[in-house]
Amino acid sequence: MFRNPKIIYSWPYGQHFCKYLRRNASFGEVHPLFESLIAGNRAALARAITLSESTLERHKQESAHLMSSVLKHNLQNRSLRIGISGPPGAGKSTFIEAIGLHITELNNKLAVLAVDPSSTRSGGSLLADKTRMQQLSVEKLAYIRPSPNRGHLGGVARATNAAIQLCEAGGYNVIIVETVGAGQSEIAVANMTDIFVLLVPPGSGDELQGIKKGIVEVADMILVTKADGNLKTAARLVKTEYSRALRLLRNHDDTSWKPFVQTVSSISGKGISDAWSDMLEFHQEMISTGKYQDRRKKQRVTWLWDHVQDELLEHLRKDTLNAKFQEKLEADVRNGVILPSTAAQKLLNLFLKGKDNIS
Amino acid sequence: MFRNPKIIYSWPYGQHFCKYLRRNASFGEVHPLFESLIAGNRAALARAITLSESTLERHKQESAHLMSSVLKHNLQNRSLRIGISGPPGAGKSTFIEAIGLHITELNNKLAVLAVDPSSTRSGGSLLADKTRMQQLSVEKLAYIRPSPNRGHLGGVARATNAAIQLCEAGGYNVIIVETVGAGQSEIAVANMTDIFVLLVPPGSGDELQGIKKGIVEVADMILVTKADGNLKTAARLVKTEYSRALRLLRNHDDTSWKPFVQTVSSISGKGISDAWSDMLEFHQEMISTGKYQDRRKKQRVTWLWDHVQDELLEHLRKDTLNAKFQEKLEADVRNGVILPSTAAQKLLNLFLKGKDNIS
Repeated sequence: MFRNPKIIYSWPYGQHFCKYLRRNASFGEVHPLFESLIAGNRAALARAITLSESTLERHKQESAHLMSSVLKHNLQNRSLRIGISGPPGAGKSTFIEAIGLHITELNNKLAVLAVDPSSTRSGGSLLADKTRMQQLSVEKLAYIRPSPNRGHLGGVARATNAAIQLCEAGGYNVIIVETVGAGQSEIAVANMTDIFVLLVPPGSGDELQGIKKGIVEVADMILVTKADGNLKTAARLVKTEYSRALRLLRNHDDTSWKPFVQTVSSISGKGISDAWSDMLEFHQEMISTGKYQDRRKKQRVTWLWDHVQDELLEHLRKDTLNAKFQEKLEADVRNGVILPSTAAQKLLNLFLKGKDNIS
Repeated sequence: MFRNPKIIYSWPYGQHFCKYLRRNASFGEVHPLFESLIAGNRAALARAITLSESTLERHKQESAHLMSSVLKHNLQNRSLRIGISGPPGAGKSTFIEAIGLHITELNNKLAVLAVDPSSTRSGGSLLADKTRMQQLSVEKLAYIRPSPNRGHLGGVARATNAAIQLCEAGGYNVIIVETVGAGQSEIAVANMTDIFVLLVPPGSGDELQGIKKGIVEVADMILVTKADGNLKTAARLVKTEYSRALRLLRNHDDTSWKPFVQTVSSISGKGISDAWSDMLEFHQEMISTGKYQDRRKKQRVTWLWDHVQDELLEHLRKDTLNAKFQEKLEADVRNGVILPSTAAQKLLNLFLKGKDNIS
């Protein structure tokens, strides 16, 4: 697996580390990053995440090697993973900074990750610019990491799932995963966190247009932001409306937790510590009822088959030999001259041609 | 394709038809069922649907042959496809009977189909028992068909999509697709219809527990049923609550249609004709704005890739040679000792082994 460490380790490690590797060509079972990672070394964490985001085959193998130790190490971990979503203008980063400073003040180690399939490394997208959370970014107990750039949600989600584990191994006991709410990314984030928080700005109509279908219904907690100054009354009104709406949704859920709505102000700080207490209460209840582990187990299996499905489709769609045939079929389906199921069968037959170990 | 008609056509056609086929071994381009189907023959429609539900390879080929003419025939069709869902006890069949009789009274041809992945032919499941809609089932302009029995949602959905087309070719201009609301079947039905109607019983708590997440948000219309007798006030209250909730959801949608809530009574008939007028208005607006065709085009392409994904996963999971390996990996993922993405990659590598036309 690690036949030529000189080449394999020329990246993404620093000079010093490369020297170490050259001296220790055979380093046994545990990946060399592992010890510094669990010792809480930030640089090691950053490197481990970068490694897990790489698409190069040798990095993938390395990352799998590192992750096997990380997962074993995390087995008894009881971290709190918080998903945060909200439409543009809901004040997500201001809120994360406010509650993040509160969380670290209480001596918790906090990692802030992001899921933004639209982000590009070069662009000034979500969290790419740490100046958005100026105070939190200089806080020693906080680690902020921009969204991985993988082009499509499946890749971003995969990388973020790995990053969560790496942060937990690094001793971060609270992980916030922020999403911009593009398409299906909220559902992905809800599927990788223990509690899903929806931020809603006061006001209605235009401001709320960014809230995607189905999001209100998966929220464990709704926080109406900007409840200060002359928006105080508006925020309270929105709170009442959402409380009413929530009574109609989610009452079928199998957890005993009743999702609720609160108002917060990231400026005055009002409601921030209450929001954190509520999250902790939720966390405790989940652990004591065994739902914490159940939910995570289910999430992991869901991810497995989601990844398999994603990758299979990806493979089929990248099947360049049949690209024209695919285009033609999709156009025929769109225009209604062939049934979607018939076209699907044709695509599959072609793709699976040559595979003979299928029953 | 039709080399031995004697064998191919021994089923599902009647004796008379078999004789015809034996006399006409070569029947050219159009499938022999097609003419009777578009002439409005109910027996031909029933046979065509049965054929489309068959999993035998020769029936699949036949069905594809028939469907190619059917789809061409339906291209300019402007039928109204109505999806109807609601929790158990919402009074779905009573409502469908009431509005169905109203629809046929106005001289429309109405087909009622069902999507119920849990149904078994032998069991007394959804719509299997036509006595549920006694009056409608003897109505000449109505055609009622129980849910296909395919075991999983993908198969049921595929068969229902074909049945919709066959009914439309048979001259049915209104198609109601009912769902029991098991898991994802509501979303599937919303994805194959032009308007999605949610039925809600008056009352709250227990009665509403059957409404799944996300369903309220995809509804184009919510009808509170049983608005008669001593439930009248309760129904009006539920209407107000849902009207408020709807203001918070769906306001981001790209259609100009504002979903709304009405009360109906299938017993007194109050609200039934209004509900039908509203559906027609929706239909007209969709057609005049071009959203009718757009939505259908999008639905078809969605179905194509859904089917492809479903089938690919099905193939992989049926890969009996690797069944034990799959089980082991899934258990490892559940227990958190391997990353879902790593396990997915292992499964894929094994499955795709031997395929060399993948880029």
